[in-house]
Amino acid sequence: MSKEAVLIDDSIGDLGEFGLIARLTGRLPVGESIELGPGDDAAVVRAPGGRVVATTDLLVEGRHFRRDWSGPYEVGRKAAAQNLADVVAMGARPSALLIGFGAPPETGVAWAEALFDGLRDECALVGASVAGGDTVRAPLVVLAITALGDLIGERPLTRDGALPGDTVAVRGRLGWAAAGLELLEKGLDGPVELIEAHRHPEPPYAAGEEAVRLRARALMDVSDGLVQDLGHIAEAGGVGIELEGSRLRPLGPAEGGSLHHVLTGGDDHAFVATFPPEVVLPGSWRQVGRVVGGSGVMVDGLPYGLGGWDHFRR
Amino acid sequence: MSKEAVLIDDSIGDLGEFGLIARLTGRLPVGESIELGPGDDAAVVRAPGGRVVATTDLLVEGRHFRRDWSGPYEVGRKAAAQNLADVVAMGARPSALLIGFGAPPETGVAWAEALFDGLRDECALVGASVAGGDTVRAPLVVLAITALGDLIGERPLTRDGALPGDTVAVRGRLGWAAAGLELLEKGLDGPVELIEAHRHPEPPYAAGEEAVRLRARALMDVSDGLVQDLGHIAEAGGVGIELEGSRLRPLGPAEGGSLHHVLTGGDDHAFVATFPPEVVLPGSWRQVGRVVGGSGVMVDGLPYGLGGWDHFRR
Repeated sequence: MSKEAVLIDDSIGDLGEFGLIARLTGRLPVGESIELGPGDDAAVVRAPGGRVVATTDLLVEGRHFRRDWSGPYEVGRKAAAQNLADVVAMGARPSALLIGFGAPPETGVAWAEALFDGLRDECALVGASVAGGDTVRAPLVVLAITALGDLIGERPLTRDGALPGDTVAVRGRLGWAAAGLELLEKGLDGPVELIEAHRHPEPPYAAGEEAVRLRARALMDVSDGLVQDLGHIAEAGGVGIELEGSRLRPLGPAEGGSLHHVLTGGDDHAFVATFPPEVVLPGSWRQVGRVVGGSGVMVDGLPYGLGGWDHFRR
Repeated sequence: MSKEAVLIDDSIGDLGEFGLIARLTGRLPVGESIELGPGDDAAVVRAPGGRVVATTDLLVEGRHFRRDWSGPYEVGRKAAAQNLADVVAMGARPSALLIGFGAPPETGVAWAEALFDGLRDECALVGASVAGGDTVRAPLVVLAITALGDLIGERPLTRDGALPGDTVAVRGRLGWAAAGLELLEKGLDGPVELIEAHRHPEPPYAAGEEAVRLRARALMDVSDGLVQDLGHIAEAGGVGIELEGSRLRPLGPAEGGSLHHVLTGGDDHAFVATFPPEVVLPGSWRQVGRVVGGSGVMVDGLPYGLGGWDHFRR
């Protein structure tokens, strides 16, 4: 803490808008997917496929992150990760982020810089970079992230292509971040790998291109919980989905988590896909169930009550 | 007011996130520039030129709009306008908006619907549509708007191409919105055309394609005030700019405004460009000065103190 207190010498209010923008953009490399970066009315991003995948998320302090539970670098990593995962979940390759950043003027410049370092470093994992943004004064920290990407396949991998007989498979971890959040809410600080999973999810970004190569029929990132997100795949495809608890349990943490976390936790940003039954999946994907006729999501033959995330209800 | 009170029967918290998204997206037409609209992990937007122009703005209640001064429909129109103007200011044609919408759960559904109607109607003026978004709970209304567009010319019209000798010209009004805001701050409700100019700017969107055809060397939308924005063109091009007050004054309101409003007011979203001196400008563009050697922006031969908008300082 003492280190942080020393670093936060100037506030962003002292710098002013243009000073802050200069400080933040000075830390951001402009990657080769960016034709024109920050500094003009708008950025210009390459879209060689003739179309662009685009998604946006709004993150509000106190609701999507807490400054006392996560440092600015982790907030930046996580905010970028959840948007990059959405681009990957379309079978696309992320190219650029646009960042809307609102904060109180007394926010430390070092805090803002660390936030943007986190955004930058998460982008670097997938070859994307920050193309532009907006900084405004706000009574609390607000982050609006837009991610753009290029489709590497012929068509986007949507959620509506599942067919009865398909294999349902997951790449990534499930329930770790949710278990970690629960620990923080109880005032606990371990097991540390669960707390870290909440603070810093690591989406397996390779899953998108891999799913395209493996001829996936539907692909999503698990952001609201597996049962809820598979519910969208079931509904969009007019199919049912049967999951096996014994195959899911190993995707969750060995201690500190439960099957409930695995089925309803969202923040790990695993990817779930359905594949034609004849596709032989590599070890990175774990089969967890299959697509059937009917509707809805069953776990071990029984309907599972929804417990995913609804932003207004909770 | 009584009509509004009757309309606001349900709150967005009653509807829940997915119910709200269904209600809002149900009001939005999906235009031909959208290959895949709301409802999947991300949208897919056509970018026939092989690159996409992208810009984002964050608007926070109490700072960028006040719910007692502007209705939701006007807030939506204005939020869309300022982003569409940024795309147009690159010499591009807007294709899509992405909307991050944060609000308290007690916000009326009718309020949110009117906001999205405003976004939709402003988009329709330029043939764009809403491609996707995010809705979250927040302690105050927050709007994050990302606009995407296609470049119609060979290259983007940036702010760095001005050359000494160029004509400096404006298309649109200046100082009207700023004068209207000042009236509201003083508790006045007229002249009504100035209040309306603040609530509902009407950027002359045709200016972008026109500037491309007229071989403009630099183009911006006036969002922070003419002197401040021309300061960016001067700095980026390594040139000076001389403005004539007598040519500027007619762009401002006949009553209720001053040359100060014309020089420093931003919210009208006029466009300012520099053109080679031999270009004959149509009547829609008004010459207001010229590019010279040196640096900075002079008005009637004297430097003009900056009075534009800095989000953190004011």
